Amino acid sequence: MLESLKKTVFEANMEIYRKGLVIYSFGNVSGIDRGKRIMGIKPSGIPYQKLSFQDIVLVNLDGKIVDGDYRPSMDTNTHLILYRKFDSIGGIVHTHATHATAWAQARRAIPCYGTTHADHFYGEIPVTAPMSDEAIERDYETETGKMIVQVFTEKNPSEVPGVLVANHGPFSWGQTPAEAVYNMVLMEEMAKIALLTEALNPDIKPIKHSLLNKHYLRKHGKNAYYGQTK
Amino acid sequence: MLESLKKTVFEANMEIYRKGLVIYSFGNVSGIDRGKRIMGIKPSGIPYQKLSFQDIVLVNLDGKIVDGDYRPSMDTNTHLILYRKFDSIGGIVHTHATHATAWAQARRAIPCYGTTHADHFYGEIPVTAPMSDEAIERDYETETGKMIVQVFTEKNPSEVPGVLVANHGPFSWGQTPAEAVYNMVLMEEMAKIALLTEALNPDIKPIKHSLLNKHYLRKHGKNAYYGQTK
Amino acid sequence: MLESLKKTVFEANMEIYRKGLVIYSFGNVSGIDRGKRIMGIKPSGIPYQKLSFQDIVLVNLDGKIVDGDYRPSMDTNTHLILYRKFDSIGGIVHTHATHATAWAQARRAIPCYGTTHADHFYGEIPVTAPMSDEAIERDYETETGKMIVQVFTEKNPSEVPGVLVANHGPFSWGQTPAEAVYNMVLMEEMAKIALLTEALNPDIKPIKHSLLNKHYLRKHGKNAYYGQTK
Amino acid sequence: MLESLKKTVFEANMEIYRKGLVIYSFGNVSGIDRGKRIMGIKPSGIPYQKLSFQDIVLVNLDGKIVDGDYRPSMDTNTHLILYRKFDSIGGIVHTHATHATAWAQARRAIPCYGTTHADHFYGEIPVTAPMSDEAIERDYETETGKMIVQVFTEKNPSEVPGVLVANHGPFSWGQTPAEAVYNMVLMEEMAKIALLTEALNPDIKPIKHSLLNKHYLRKHGKNAYYGQTK
Repeated sequence: MLESLKKTVFEANMEIYRKGLVIYSFGNVSGIDRGKRIMGIKPSGIPYQKLSFQDIVLVNLDGKIVDGDYRPSMDTNTHLILYRKFDSIGGIVHTHATHATAWAQARRAIPCYGTTHADHFYGEIPVTAPMSDEAIERDYETETGKMIVQVFTEKNPSEVPGVLVANHGPFSWGQTPAEAVYNMVLMEEMAKIALLTEALNPDIKPIKHSLLNKHYLRKHGKNAYYGQTK
Repeated sequence: MLESLKKTVFEANMEIYRKGLVIYSFGNVSGIDRGKRIMGIKPSGIPYQKLSFQDIVLVNLDGKIVDGDYRPSMDTNTHLILYRKFDSIGGIVHTHATHATAWAQARRAIPCYGTTHADHFYGEIPVTAPMSDEAIERDYETETGKMIVQVFTEKNPSEVPGVLVANHGPFSWGQTPAEAVYNMVLMEEMAKIALLTEALNPDIKPIKHSLLNKHYLRKHGKNAYYGQTK
Repeated sequence: MLESLKKTVFEANMEIYRKGLVIYSFGNVSGIDRGKRIMGIKPSGIPYQKLSFQDIVLVNLDGKIVDGDYRPSMDTNTHLILYRKFDSIGGIVHTHATHATAWAQARRAIPCYGTTHADHFYGEIPVTAPMSDEAIERDYETETGKMIVQVFTEKNPSEVPGVLVANHGPFSWGQTPAEAVYNMVLMEEMAKIALLTEALNPDIKPIKHSLLNKHYLRKHGKNAYYGQTK
Repeated sequence: MLESLKKTVFEANMEIYRKGLVIYSFGNVSGIDRGKRIMGIKPSGIPYQKLSFQDIVLVNLDGKIVDGDYRPSMDTNTHLILYRKFDSIGGIVHTHATHATAWAQARRAIPCYGTTHADHFYGEIPVTAPMSDEAIERDYETETGKMIVQVFTEKNPSEVPGVLVANHGPFSWGQTPAEAVYNMVLMEEMAKIALLTEALNPDIKPIKHSLLNKHYLRKHGKNAYYGQTK
C-alpha cells in the first residue's frame, strides 16, 4: 500500500515534468495516505530525469521520515501544514510554471475573466500576503504554509484548489496527486489567458456572479450535469 | 453511413487535440448528416486520449439521443441551434484556444488587420453581447446559440465562419467538421497575430475595404483564382 | 538540371513547413535557374503535407508555365518581378510567420536593436508603403512586387535580404532557396526579439552605426572573419 | 584528457541547441582544463547539426590554437578574458536566447522579482555599459570581455553566474560547461518570467533582501539545506 502511494506520487511528479511545468529538479508533488497518516513526497534536488518511484520519501504528519534514502523536498513543511489544515485534500503540487509564477511575482490574484476559469475555480485564484522578515528567518517553509492557510479562512480550498505564494509561485491541490496536477495545468493556462485578456482590454472586469455560478455549478455540486453519471 | 458520420466527427475531435487547441476533455466538435437530420457530437467529459469513434453520440435536431452509450457534450443545444439556423454548415467546433479565448474574455471582436485574416474571414470576427442573468438561468446552452445567431442577422456565416462568445471562447464552423477545424486553427492564429499587431502599433486600423475584397475574393466566390481548378 | 531545380525548391518549401513558419498551404518558396531563365515555384493551394517535388511548377521570366500539372502560386508575379529586378538573388520565400506578420500588419519596419539583427541584416528591415486602390484592382501580385522594388531603390537587397509588405507579411530572399529560408527564419526571430525589446524599454533606440558596421562586416564583405576559410 | 575536454565542451554545445537556446550556428560554449591551461571552444560558423566532438578547437590562454582543424569561435577572446579574470569558472556559454537577448537589447538588468531567480542568482542579472566607438574598432571581442569584467568589480561571478552584454545578448558561466548551460537555461527562464511580471504589474519592485538571502542561502553556502548530502 505504501508502495502504491510511492507510485502514485512518482507518477504525478513525472507528469508535471512532462507537461513542461517544471525544469531540472524544480517543483514537487506529494500525496497522502489519510488512513496511515503518511505523506509521500519528491526527494530534494533530484532531477526528474533521474527520479524513480523508490526515491519518493515517506514522512509522517509530524515531519518525521519513516522511509526513504533521501532527504525530502525542502518544501515538506509547507505540504504538511496544508494536509493538517485541509482535510479534503489528498495531493499537493508546487511548480514554477511560467505564467502562474509571473502573477505570483506581480503579487496579484488571478481574476476570473471567463468560463474556462469558472469551470474549475470558484472565483479568483488568490495570492498570499508578503511574509514578514521575522517569519522568513523563523521557519520559512512552515510559515509559507501558514500564509496559504490564512488566505483560506473565508474560502473553501475544495472550491478554489490553488493559490499563488507572493514573490514565489503557485501551489495547487486535489483529492489525489493526479487531480492536483490537473489543477496546476489549469492554473497555468488561466494565468496565461488572463494576462492576454488584460493586454487586450485593460479595463476588463471579472465575470458576473450569475455566470460564475452557472459554470462552476454545472460541473460541480449536486446539480452538476457535466460528464457521465457513474 | 452513420458510422461514417461518427468517424468524421471523431477524426475532427482528435485533430483539435493534436493541434493543441484543447487540453484534457475541453472543447468539442460535431458534424451533421443533413439528409438524415442527425448530428454526431463528442460525449461530455471524456478525455481526448480515451476517445474512440464509437463514443460519438448521435442526436436528432430536436435534441433526442438516437444512438450512443454516453451523454452528449453539455454544449449540444448550442450546436443544434446553429445547425437549425445556418443551413450551409456541416460541422461545428468549440475550443478554449488560448488567444481566441483571450479576445472572448476581453469582449472584443478580432479586427481584420491583414491579408492572412482577409484570406479566410470576410471582415472582423465578431463577439456576442453578454448574456442577461435571466437567460443564463433559463437554458444557458440554448441561449448561447441564440446569442451567436443574433450576431449573424446581418452577416453571412459562410463568409465569417466563426464567432467569439463573450467571456467564454471561440466557436467556428464549415461545410464539414474538418473545415470547421481548419477555421478554428486560423481563428486562433489570427487572434495571436492581431494581439501582437496592437502591441506594436496601438493606433493601427483595420485594412481598407479594397484590400479585404481583393484577398477574400481571390480565394472565394466565382472569380477566385486560388488553388487548382477541379 | 530542371529536376534539380524542382528538388531544391521542393526542399526549401518543406523546410519552411518544418520550421513552423507556415501552416496548411500558406506561403511559398521559389528558386531560379539563371542560365535557363526558369523559375520553380510551389503550386497554388497544395498543402505541404501532400507536396512532392514533381508538383513544383516551372515558369519562365515572362510568367509562362513551361512545365507542371498545377497552377503556380498566386504570388508568382511578385516573385518574377523580384528576380527580374534583383540580379543577385536565386531564391525567394513568402510566409505568414507570426511575429514578422504582426510587424507587417502594424505597418512598421523592424528596427535594428541588436547584434543578432546586425549579423544578418545591414540595418532595419523595411516595410512597403500601403498600396493604392487602383493598384490593388489592376494587377495585385505584380504591384506587390513593385512596392517591394520601390523600397530598395536606395538599399541593397543583398545587404538587407528581406522586407515586410504592409498589411500582408514578410518576403525574404538569398543566393539560393535554402539561404532565403535561412533569412526568413532570422527575420521571424528578429521580429520576436524586437517586439519584446520594445515591451521592456519603449524608449529604446536602434544600435549605433559603429556597432552595426562591426557586426555586419565581421560576417560579410572582404574583411569578414566569421566561419571557415574555404 | 584533452579528448575528455573536447567531449565535455561538445556535449554542452549540443545541449544549448537541444534546449532551443540557439539556432543554426549561433552561440558557443567553451570549457577549460585549468591544469593544462587549455580552453576548448566551438569552431566558428559550424552548424550544431554538423558538429562532432573532434571539431572542438583547443586554444591556450594566450589565444594560440594548439589543436583543431577549424578556426575557433569569433568570440574566443571574450571567453579567454573571462577565464583569466574569474579563477572559479570552468565553462562559459554565449547564446542569443530570445528573452535574455531582449533584455540585453533593451539595455536593462533583469531585476530579481522572485524566489526562482533568488534560488540561482544572488541579485539582479547585470547588463554591461554600451561600448565606445573606439573600443568597437580596436579589438571588439576582447573589449566585450572587458566590459563584462567591469560589471563584476563589486560582484562575485560565482554568486551571479551570468551577464547581459548591452545590445548583444547573454553570457553565463559555471564550474563546468554543463553548469554554465544550466545557468543559461535559468537566465532565459528568469528573463521571460520577469518580462511577464512587469506586464502584470508595472510598479513591481525587486524582492526584499531577507527573502533573497533566505532563498539563495538555503541552496548555496555552508548552511544550505537543499539537495542531498554527499
